[in-house]
Amino acid sequence: MYSYPDSFSRVIENLSRLPGIGYRTAERLAIFLFKSPPEKVGELATAIAELKKRVSYCKLCGNFTSNELCSICSSAKRDHSIICVVEEAKDIIAIEKANQYRGLYHVLKGAISPLDGIGPDDLAIGELMERVKDGSIKEVILATNTSAEGETTANYLCQQLKPSRAKLTRIACGIPVGSSLEYIDEITLGKSLTARVEMTG
Amino acid sequence: MYSYPDSFSRVIENLSRLPGIGYRTAERLAIFLFKSPPEKVGELATAIAELKKRVSYCKLCGNFTSNELCSICSSAKRDHSIICVVEEAKDIIAIEKANQYRGLYHVLKGAISPLDGIGPDDLAIGELMERVKDGSIKEVILATNTSAEGETTANYLCQQLKPSRAKLTRIACGIPVGSSLEYIDEITLGKSLTARVEMTG
Repeated sequence: MYSYPDSFSRVIENLSRLPGIGYRTAERLAIFLFKSPPEKVGELATAIAELKKRVSYCKLCGNFTSNELCSICSSAKRDHSIICVVEEAKDIIAIEKANQYRGLYHVLKGAISPLDGIGPDDLAIGELMERVKDGSIKEVILATNTSAEGETTANYLCQQLKPSRAKLTRIACGIPVGSSLEYIDEITLGKSLTARVEMTG
Repeated sequence: MYSYPDSFSRVIENLSRLPGIGYRTAERLAIFLFKSPPEKVGELATAIAELKKRVSYCKLCGNFTSNELCSICSSAKRDHSIICVVEEAKDIIAIEKANQYRGLYHVLKGAISPLDGIGPDDLAIGELMERVKDGSIKEVILATNTSAEGETTANYLCQQLKPSRAKLTRIACGIPVGSSLEYIDEITLGKSLTARVEMTG
């Protein structure tokens, strides 16, 4: 069967292994790359090759970093007495974009999910306990997802962290800002009612 | 504003330049790559870097190739007296998959499109005339798309090639195999009626 030249097929094959990219999309991308100026293509190839060499996980919190510690853990401007616990490193970017939090983070690298065979021992919970142990942490914000797995993980962490002197909080559930009530599921709506806050002024 | 480490951002930025890949998808791909085994990532980077070095256009027909001539033009098993004219090199792969054609190809590298400022001189039409000139070509199949631009191009080529001794044909328009008539647009349906063929046996 006639097909693309080998070097071409190799790009298609490699691209189609990426999540959400099927054979047809990979084909289209390979053709686009082939038609792009060589320096742009070289740039992409180099960027990908460098990624694994230059980036690793922060030794303290598990965030992406190109140094031993990430720029948040090593910053004197951040409040080192609060830890916000998230499932994945990319959640840190999302929270940082909100521009409301000035403390540190801790990445669990997942959530407790018995169906997927992921228990507490598969997550970076031991490392979190270690960070909280010496009593310098005043608050631990549990910012795991509000999915079943995230809730289970938050509840488990709450039990584990109770003996520590740190205050334990959970991110608020409720109606997303700018939403119409009619499109909100009843569980969220229920939560937003029970967690209602008094209006002042 | 806090963001990903530089090497990470560079991958995201480069990926999000690809067609159909927005920032969010690029972010997801970069995270996937970062979590993949280094050899897989290296393979992708190398494949992309090699693409522009190893693959070029066939000097005769404009197909993708890693040699001077593509494997179709240089094959003795193909019928060198028929040329199938297509808009893009990727159309060759599509036709080859159909496994019905054993002649050669000619890639125009586009179609006449006055709206986009693409005229006959911007396409590989001169090269096609050159190939047909010596009279060894018995048939030219015009397999440009059935879009307005493709039709215009086919009509233009028909005029240009008329003086040659080659028979000129156009791929058939009609109902795609396996379709329900109710979903077919009226222009296609009309064409399939005027171009109806007699049933035998």
